[in-house]
Amino acid sequence: MLPQPTIVMKFGGTSVADAERIKRAARRIVAQREAGHRVVAVLSARGHTTDELIRAAEEVSPHPDPREMDMLLSTGERISCALCAMAINDLGHRAISLTGSQAGIVTDTSHTKARILDVRAERIVEALEQDKIVLVAGFQGVSTSRDVTTLGRGGSDTTAVALAAAVGAEVCEIYTDVSGVFSADPRIVPDARKLPLVSFEEMLEMAASGAKVLQLRSVEYARTHGVRIHCRSSFEDGPGTYVIGEDETMEHPLITAVTHSTEEARITVVGVPDRPGAAAEIFEALAEANVNVDTIVQNEPRTAGLEAEVSFTCGSDDLRTAETTLAPVIERFGGAKLETDPEVGKVSIIGAGMRSHPGVAAKVFRVLAGEEINIELINTSPIKITCLIRAESVPRAVNALHTAFGLSASDVKREGALGEEAR
Amino acid sequence: MLPQPTIVMKFGGTSVADAERIKRAARRIVAQREAGHRVVAVLSARGHTTDELIRAAEEVSPHPDPREMDMLLSTGERISCALCAMAINDLGHRAISLTGSQAGIVTDTSHTKARILDVRAERIVEALEQDKIVLVAGFQGVSTSRDVTTLGRGGSDTTAVALAAAVGAEVCEIYTDVSGVFSADPRIVPDARKLPLVSFEEMLEMAASGAKVLQLRSVEYARTHGVRIHCRSSFEDGPGTYVIGEDETMEHPLITAVTHSTEEARITVVGVPDRPGAAAEIFEALAEANVNVDTIVQNEPRTAGLEAEVSFTCGSDDLRTAETTLAPVIERFGGAKLETDPEVGKVSIIGAGMRSHPGVAAKVFRVLAGEEINIELINTSPIKITCLIRAESVPRAVNALHTAFGLSASDVKREGALGEEAR
Repeated sequence: MLPQPTIVMKFGGTSVADAERIKRAARRIVAQREAGHRVVAVLSARGHTTDELIRAAEEVSPHPDPREMDMLLSTGERISCALCAMAINDLGHRAISLTGSQAGIVTDTSHTKARILDVRAERIVEALEQDKIVLVAGFQGVSTSRDVTTLGRGGSDTTAVALAAAVGAEVCEIYTDVSGVFSADPRIVPDARKLPLVSFEEMLEMAASGAKVLQLRSVEYARTHGVRIHCRSSFEDGPGTYVIGEDETMEHPLITAVTHSTEEARITVVGVPDRPGAAAEIFEALAEANVNVDTIVQNEPRTAGLEAEVSFTCGSDDLRTAETTLAPVIERFGGAKLETDPEVGKVSIIGAGMRSHPGVAAKVFRVLAGEEINIELINTSPIKITCLIRAESVPRAVNALHTAFGLSASDVKREGALGEEAR
Repeated sequence: MLPQPTIVMKFGGTSVADAERIKRAARRIVAQREAGHRVVAVLSARGHTTDELIRAAEEVSPHPDPREMDMLLSTGERISCALCAMAINDLGHRAISLTGSQAGIVTDTSHTKARILDVRAERIVEALEQDKIVLVAGFQGVSTSRDVTTLGRGGSDTTAVALAAAVGAEVCEIYTDVSGVFSADPRIVPDARKLPLVSFEEMLEMAASGAKVLQLRSVEYARTHGVRIHCRSSFEDGPGTYVIGEDETMEHPLITAVTHSTEEARITVVGVPDRPGAAAEIFEALAEANVNVDTIVQNEPRTAGLEAEVSFTCGSDDLRTAETTLAPVIERFGGAKLETDPEVGKVSIIGAGMRSHPGVAAKVFRVLAGEEINIELINTSPIKITCLIRAESVPRAVNALHTAFGLSASDVKREGALGEEAR
């Protein structure tokens, strides 16, 4: 597409938090340009800017209008980009900052959680051809109704991946305050290991089950469009973790990582009428309110005609929306009621090699039982096993599983659990 | 144009400085809507936001790129608008905030000092027809190269007037922290009087000579497009000052106001070669650098072929730019040099009635002489007399002139100076 290879670099909020860090990001960007790449850099809002803007909105209005919230929040990334462009210009290179709209990020009209419909990158390509470094405000776009939209928290990752796909970038580098993707959260598991390679599928499961290093949607987008991601530290050199297609990974370890989340809430609808469509009513309402539902379990009524119980989990931040959304549904059900539990957590093990190895689930349950941790719900995919447990037991569960599956740095050279070679 | 009368309301930075003030502005806007007007409100950045953004830029870069400066600064007004829209929505009305670009403010490409080329108000009109209150981010537009531009300090007034012209508004209300236009700065002249009516011509001269209540460009725009301005307080009710066409004013007072400025610098180019085009070279260079030159005086060389001296004044904030701009010109002149004096001030008297009354200038000089104030430069228009004096003498000069021309509140009922009825 362009004579020189293009890369996309994305810097998160901590990487542009103050003047010094913005200058450091500028130097990193210039270094890649001087190494012969055309560079598109996507920036997040500085440090606590977004939180400050949210606070300003809350001071003015108890339930801020979503369209106006987007107009408000989108300013944070623009500030980062303008400042970084100034710093790059001072380093003797030409930079231009673009808003999401100017960069051609076209989204649907679902404010505060918009989805990208199209990337019209002509203006970016034009600037790259003029030998400019292009800075794009992350996390935002312009809707088909010409309003400013935001992509939801962490949306800057998605912006970066979408632009990488649109300009045919070699790699999409995600710079954060951690040096890569780990076999578990190093704050909980001190000897967690940095993973050199993770497949899209594994990364998807990890993001969905609590790993915060990459946003789920950005990984989905990368997989669909075949964008290689390089997740690395903005504060130190050296490689981080590559997230790539499964066919590109050399080995298929049984278990790659243990992830967890304590930001989960469980909701149970008691007294769901036993008729077709009752569950659909619940989850259609939630989908309309943009509540991301994770695990769903329905208990069949023991006697036909009696009422059923439906439980599901969602992010704690969606709990209030879920309750408000379900109130009229519950009322239509007559006699039904809502029980909520904000104190749940989940722990997951993820590994592409799991597909061909039975017995992993059994081992997980055995390990948790050994820690006397009660499992409240279980959810599996071909490459993931998730257990819902008490939030307070999460750190213990993560450590026990990490050790049992031989994921520690010190275990890497030994034979992994269940006889598979760990990488 | 629209079935209901439309008004434009503009709120300055102090009127939207915090959550309480934003809510107050929202209530004022809603009150006008409920009184039967369609409302377009133009907002400035909150309190010190612009200064904070400028500081952030200076931390990153010693000479920030103007294009990026505009991208940065334009965020302040967007924040104000989004927050105010939220507050209006909470009051049961529907509001929509628009960026300068969305509002159709098309400018030239002269970053940080852009001029409005066109207002494409279709989107505003559409929203008004949908019964929405429209909030527009002041001070900004989109250039013909599709970049975000800003109109320079105080540009929000110009945005408001331009929109009032474009939507055919009945009046453009400018809300500030003062209650109107005064016969002199009340901080310097305690018995200065609020003027109920001022003509565009007088207001232009007042804005040009130091009155800060309205930006010069906005008054020019209003005169050209026949937009009535109502300058009033955002903190108290009651009428302020109407700025209207001279044909609409009932009386023509001799002197309307005394204005002053201490933000002036004087520059003298010593040793200008006595050949055609030398002065043009100086002022073309300054115009290109967007330096607003005020008074110009050239001393003819006493002997043909010798060098001349050219003096001019400009705003103190333009002094550095002027020096940098003139350095190469001076060099070309060979042997010329630049002398600057940042300590000058100016005092002006303004009045449409002056046209038909000789002797006003003589009286001004007599009054200043009586105060033993030396006049360094004099500049006149048909309705204004400006004297350049030492900055430190300015308060004394203003008070003496205000008293001598009978402008005080207590003087209004008496016959004014030179036999003309003051209003």
